[in-house]
Amino acid sequence: MMKFNNRNVYISPKAKIGKNVKIGDNSVIYDNVIIGDNSIISNDCIIGEPLNDYYFKDDYQNPETIIGEGALIRSHTIIYSGSSFGTNFSTGHRATVREQSRFGNNCRLGTVTDIQGYVEFGNNCWLHSNVHIGQQSKIGNFVFIYPYVVLTNDPTPPSDICVGATIGDFSQIAVGTVLLPATKIGMHCLVGAQSLVGGKYEDYSLIVGNPARRIKDVRDLKSKETDESHYPWPDKFSRGMPWEKEGFDVWKLKNGYEND
Amino acid sequence: MMKFNNRNVYISPKAKIGKNVKIGDNSVIYDNVIIGDNSIISNDCIIGEPLNDYYFKDDYQNPETIIGEGALIRSHTIIYSGSSFGTNFSTGHRATVREQSRFGNNCRLGTVTDIQGYVEFGNNCWLHSNVHIGQQSKIGNFVFIYPYVVLTNDPTPPSDICVGATIGDFSQIAVGTVLLPATKIGMHCLVGAQSLVGGKYEDYSLIVGNPARRIKDVRDLKSKETDESHYPWPDKFSRGMPWEKEGFDVWKLKNGYEND
Amino acid sequence: MMKFNNRNVYISPKAKIGKNVKIGDNSVIYDNVIIGDNSIISNDCIIGEPLNDYYFKDDYQNPETIIGEGALIRSHTIIYSGSSFGTNFSTGHRATVREQSRFGNNCRLGTVTDIQGYVEFGNNCWLHSNVHIGQQSKIGNFVFIYPYVVLTNDPTPPSDICVGATIGDFSQIAVGTVLLPATKIGMHCLVGAQSLVGGKYEDYSLIVGNPARRIKDVRDLKSKETDESHYPWPDKFSRGMPWEKEGFDVWKLKNGYEND
Repeated sequence: MMKFNNRNVYISPKAKIGKNVKIGDNSVIYDNVIIGDNSIISNDCIIGEPLNDYYFKDDYQNPETIIGEGALIRSHTIIYSGSSFGTNFSTGHRATVREQSRFGNNCRLGTVTDIQGYVEFGNNCWLHSNVHIGQQSKIGNFVFIYPYVVLTNDPTPPSDICVGATIGDFSQIAVGTVLLPATKIGMHCLVGAQSLVGGKYEDYSLIVGNPARRIKDVRDLKSKETDESHYPWPDKFSRGMPWEKEGFDVWKLKNGYEND
Repeated sequence: MMKFNNRNVYISPKAKIGKNVKIGDNSVIYDNVIIGDNSIISNDCIIGEPLNDYYFKDDYQNPETIIGEGALIRSHTIIYSGSSFGTNFSTGHRATVREQSRFGNNCRLGTVTDIQGYVEFGNNCWLHSNVHIGQQSKIGNFVFIYPYVVLTNDPTPPSDICVGATIGDFSQIAVGTVLLPATKIGMHCLVGAQSLVGGKYEDYSLIVGNPARRIKDVRDLKSKETDESHYPWPDKFSRGMPWEKEGFDVWKLKNGYEND
Repeated sequence: MMKFNNRNVYISPKAKIGKNVKIGDNSVIYDNVIIGDNSIISNDCIIGEPLNDYYFKDDYQNPETIIGEGALIRSHTIIYSGSSFGTNFSTGHRATVREQSRFGNNCRLGTVTDIQGYVEFGNNCWLHSNVHIGQQSKIGNFVFIYPYVVLTNDPTPPSDICVGATIGDFSQIAVGTVLLPATKIGMHCLVGAQSLVGGKYEDYSLIVGNPARRIKDVRDLKSKETDESHYPWPDKFSRGMPWEKEGFDVWKLKNGYEND
């Protein structure tokens, strides 16, 4: 066993660690963290990072942090107390997740991804490396967000206004794109790389440019490789998806996505 | 006490640590670091990181690093030797600050922010997550820089020319913007998201686009929320600012900002 | 000696460490890592990070990781097992390099740079801070890539197609640029800041914009500083280059770059 030798690991006596959980060297688990069975916390992680009040209030109590079963948290990740994650949550290295972040099942965060807290994600969201999610963002199910995308929330910086972006089920946000405050992206949309996006977009929109606009319906976007549209993508891509075995057509009927 | 148990902490005998300073697990404080009273250095930090010469010269002496009173350095931050920070300096996680960086009072650096050294900041500058400041940048007071902004310095890469950008007091640089080498932004400017900015801009400019240009006076920019201009912002925003209690109008008269 | 006190260091008995290698506090060297003579591994690094199978297969064997002589790996860097690096490899802080990455000699990776694995680099490539290199990228010799550049590989996300970008010898990719999947950049090209680049470009192209296009031959691009073209740059820049002493004209004849 190369890892998990319990060298320089600290686990609070107030944490609850499930069965068959492995914790890597130099990691710290703070008060009131609950880690589900069969989870892996790799090296140099901080789970249940105390909130700002900890530094200044003597009677500070660390809020509950819930990590579901089957998590795989890669090294140098920091997760604040007061967030919750469904089953099979995973992170790359050096992810940061602040308080009051709610994630469904089967979500993945890439390396250096930065979740600013006070956000909601559905199930099966995949965020790649170095994604930045501002506070008050609301993201549906099966949303994939690619590297260096930023979701913002302050329309007139600096201000006390905080209105996050919303992204509907199955939408894809390509690399380097910025969603301006209060942007609403419908379901099954594709936002092209390095776009600057504001406003509200209907389902199945292809959204491109700086400033971005709706170019066409994604179902009319021909792939150079196949000469047919890749979208809606769940019919064409199943790796790691819950419909991997039976196909999306069968799965969606069973799971309440009849209209997609 | 959840943190600050002195597990695996190393403090050089040549460092000077003030009163009531807390240092988190696995952190390292190198030679000739001076930390002011009531400061907090969280987990896994490196303060006074030796410069490159350390690896190659036997008689290497670590330059002095000065961290003012009341600092809050969050976990995994790396601060090189040879920089100085005024009072109430704070960082998010994994900030990197290289040598010869000078910061005034009340400055904040966000998570993963990367200060390349040989830079100057005034007081009350707030840099959000993942900002990159190239060498020879000069930034005034009350400048806020948002995620994924990059300040560059080489007009013909690669070369030995290094001419940083300059940003005047109270200016705001929104997410994803690049300032090209030698860019000069005046006071009270607003640079829009994902702009590519070169050249010189007068005070109160709204600067937008790729390539960016001055669109209008920020005082003529109507907010959708209020139908009046949010700028100059110090009249409208005071959270964490020194005029929080008395208002900007009163404060500026006392503090030499009569002309703003 | 400030560093390298062997505090909380773990070295696998199956690793091979060369002569005069220094390893910093809290660093971990896993099975089957080979580190060349005179290398420095700084604090909090993970070298030979086990691949995903490690977590799930009992008979997992860590692939060989080869780090050439004279490496300087800065703190908090993570290098996966199954990659190889030529002589004089260096990283900034918090670099991540995944498996099946092949680097020639004299390559440098900046702080937070993220190499996704299954990539090839020639000799003398310099990647600055926060560069993201997608799988299947192929990069020549003397290529410099500046902060926040992303090389992508999936033309219709999400899909199982993976076609990386290619960059020819001596080309320069400026800050904040995205190379779309299958982009081919010739030799001696300059890609301007914050460009969105797709397609194929001949040698000596100046490529700029969102969307990007070839503007002119880089040899016709006048520098504001000198009123002559800085490109091809090897005639004008030699710091850290193998032609630093004798000049590019002499060096190229000796080294098979007769046509440049």
